[in-house]
Amino acid sequence: MLRQRPVMLDAAIAEIRAVLGDRLTIAMAVREQHGKGEAYHKPAPPDAVAFVESTEEVVAVVKACAKYRIPVIPFGAGTALEGHTAALHGGICVDVTRMNKVLAVNTSDLDVRVQPGVTRKQLNEYLRDTGLFFPIDPGADASIGGMTATRASGTNAVRYGTMRENVLSLEVVTADGRVVRTSRRARKSSAGYDLTRLFVGSEGTLGVITEITVKVYGIPEATSSAMCAFPDVKSAVDTCIATIQAGIPVARIELADKLQMEAIAAYSKINIPAAPTLWLEFHGSETGVKEQAEFVQAIAAEHGGEDFRWTTDPAERKKIWQARHDAAYASKGLRQGCSIWATDVCVPISRLADCIVETQADLDASFIPAPIVGHVGDGNFHLCFVLNMDDPKEVAEANRLNDRLIHRALSMDGTCTGEHGVGYGKIDFLTAEHGEAVSLMRMIKKSLDPDNIMNPGKIVRV
Amino acid sequence: MLRQRPVMLDAAIAEIRAVLGDRLTIAMAVREQHGKGEAYHKPAPPDAVAFVESTEEVVAVVKACAKYRIPVIPFGAGTALEGHTAALHGGICVDVTRMNKVLAVNTSDLDVRVQPGVTRKQLNEYLRDTGLFFPIDPGADASIGGMTATRASGTNAVRYGTMRENVLSLEVVTADGRVVRTSRRARKSSAGYDLTRLFVGSEGTLGVITEITVKVYGIPEATSSAMCAFPDVKSAVDTCIATIQAGIPVARIELADKLQMEAIAAYSKINIPAAPTLWLEFHGSETGVKEQAEFVQAIAAEHGGEDFRWTTDPAERKKIWQARHDAAYASKGLRQGCSIWATDVCVPISRLADCIVETQADLDASFIPAPIVGHVGDGNFHLCFVLNMDDPKEVAEANRLNDRLIHRALSMDGTCTGEHGVGYGKIDFLTAEHGEAVSLMRMIKKSLDPDNIMNPGKIVRV
Repeated sequence: MLRQRPVMLDAAIAEIRAVLGDRLTIAMAVREQHGKGEAYHKPAPPDAVAFVESTEEVVAVVKACAKYRIPVIPFGAGTALEGHTAALHGGICVDVTRMNKVLAVNTSDLDVRVQPGVTRKQLNEYLRDTGLFFPIDPGADASIGGMTATRASGTNAVRYGTMRENVLSLEVVTADGRVVRTSRRARKSSAGYDLTRLFVGSEGTLGVITEITVKVYGIPEATSSAMCAFPDVKSAVDTCIATIQAGIPVARIELADKLQMEAIAAYSKINIPAAPTLWLEFHGSETGVKEQAEFVQAIAAEHGGEDFRWTTDPAERKKIWQARHDAAYASKGLRQGCSIWATDVCVPISRLADCIVETQADLDASFIPAPIVGHVGDGNFHLCFVLNMDDPKEVAEANRLNDRLIHRALSMDGTCTGEHGVGYGKIDFLTAEHGEAVSLMRMIKKSLDPDNIMNPGKIVRV
Repeated sequence: MLRQRPVMLDAAIAEIRAVLGDRLTIAMAVREQHGKGEAYHKPAPPDAVAFVESTEEVVAVVKACAKYRIPVIPFGAGTALEGHTAALHGGICVDVTRMNKVLAVNTSDLDVRVQPGVTRKQLNEYLRDTGLFFPIDPGADASIGGMTATRASGTNAVRYGTMRENVLSLEVVTADGRVVRTSRRARKSSAGYDLTRLFVGSEGTLGVITEITVKVYGIPEATSSAMCAFPDVKSAVDTCIATIQAGIPVARIELADKLQMEAIAAYSKINIPAAPTLWLEFHGSETGVKEQAEFVQAIAAEHGGEDFRWTTDPAERKKIWQARHDAAYASKGLRQGCSIWATDVCVPISRLADCIVETQADLDASFIPAPIVGHVGDGNFHLCFVLNMDDPKEVAEANRLNDRLIHRALSMDGTCTGEHGVGYGKIDFLTAEHGEAVSLMRMIKKSLDPDNIMNPGKIVRV
């Protein structure tokens, strides 16, 4: 798609302004802020930003854009990592941050209905007095709309699933401006194609998500947390595999490699071993979480785990997890003045140790440091390149390492992204991953968005 | 679509016979057996039945059918309940029962790859010595291919999910005869549209499923089972809601109404109260399943539950569950010489008691008995009409009750089918349930199967 002729754009902007007034802006600072995510991608500002406040307003924007064939780019918290919000072909950015109401909390059904601008932390704050919580936790305080659009997950996915498993129903505005509800609120259904799952992970390319019904969970009676260092990555991963095979309903199981632990120790000034480390969390009854922690302690010992510490004390638990939470800042501290480029892959867990070890060998031979952290129960891990984005040689090197990482993951029957999404940063890897299946994705895109106005240039090229 | 002209059909049959030889049959007895499921629907025999043995043979059949625009109807164990296998417009039935190999068991990754004709019991038999099991258990010994196609579930869904959550990846033959793999084997992915979930529940209308990779689980260390009678349906459902809210990871929680319990007592000649009854099962450690059972025992007591019996003894557990397993036969025993017509709906659990009580009032005013059993943790329940299928008056009455049941479920934000699927039996309810969303389903169907040859007349009319 070529850049729109200004006359068409002007007409669309005029129609939208008639509905939104000042909430449609063409100020350059606002446009620039909306054309970039939190990653390394070249930003591309939209032609205007629409601060919508209702589904009806989204419909008005989309209808105007459909009429003049102007791209529509949804925008939530702006925390996307693969250039999802870049307006590659210009167009109108639909900023949903003002659509931030929790619309319904159904305590008996353990579900909530929210507008797309509600962030995950906001939702949990809102739920605080209900005894319920929403477990999906990407690192950033992302919006639920954005998390749905990218099929996000985080540390709790091994127990509670990803957005794929936790979205019950969506309201979406289609490319022709219709309002569609993808599903009823029943926990399960065999009534027709799974439109909910089709829109989860569609990154704004099939429609704009305007309401999300997600599952929530009772806050567990008790929680125990644990931390343990291992002689090598394989021992840590094998501990994880044995834990899951034994049916331990582990809530979190996180891995950091040696370099990451060194970075954390330096950043946090705490005394932790410079060795591959697992963090674990268990949810259940008082006796249950004790039993689970002790069970895994024994498994870890069999695999050479040292100094397995576990606790149910909230202050101690916080201290254990603080080290994990410090990972990103600690990485940045490895090279002063440098930026972070986080990438992710996911492989079958049986290949995870191999994938990490081979990747580490690659990194050892490179001049760019890249600590590894992973949601190891899912086989998902992140490289965090610490580099000078202004140096083309460094960017080229990170690209080379990223390419090799992804092809390594694909060769192990893995995926080019476990939870960050495709955006335009990983669009070229999709064919390598899916082959012929990409043509089916393209057919679906063309059928639901024949004029290619919904976030064009993301996921599939048309 | 009109009935194919015989000359086109003959040409397709000749091409397929060149590949399959005697494994393509036009014998009337075989065709008739393949044109019906296990339900009340008018059977419609296909023009021929192809007993395929490989993906390549499926490709050959589909390509011949695509060339001559002949319908393709996949067939597994023949246990569908909404007329899924009826060849409404004639065509070639693709019988996959000979594609019944378990292709891979990945014990570290807890997944298996199977051909579509493998049945769930066959798979569990195969897994017996591995310490793993596949939990999805619709009543019948359905094929994994059919279970995938109908998004099936069963008694374990409250803990382990449905086919929606348990299919990792599919190989499918598309309407134009291409072989597509929908996903890699990684546990999670954000790489593009969720084609796996699109094909799960598509009932053969988008392609023929030729391989399925599903999750499996470690057999729990311990299992406890429980049974308890309640003064009314609401007390039983409230016990279920409180159990789930408390975060008890209940593996099964099944409900039967008073009529069903009377039928079971009469059939099995056992002494059980004629009252709404819950069965429960807990999976975990020895102490865990004891703790869970006792916790729920206390919840049940608060809701008027009487004589809550629980046990970890295998023989006792079997006895407890035998009563539940007898439900279908017991229902049939209510009226000698009559048939069973099983329908299902699913509602948010907060509305489940209302939905069942209102339905019972409907049934009390009718001359057709219909016991109720339900997977109550999901809000899913079945009516089991016991009727004389040869009496149009009885069939009309069951249809009337079924219509009212479905519209009642829809009015409670539920679905017209929780686990049986749409087939052609529930196709007219889909618009009532999904409204505008059905047009999106139609757009997807048209884009992936432009000539409407894949199981035409099911899910969406084109």
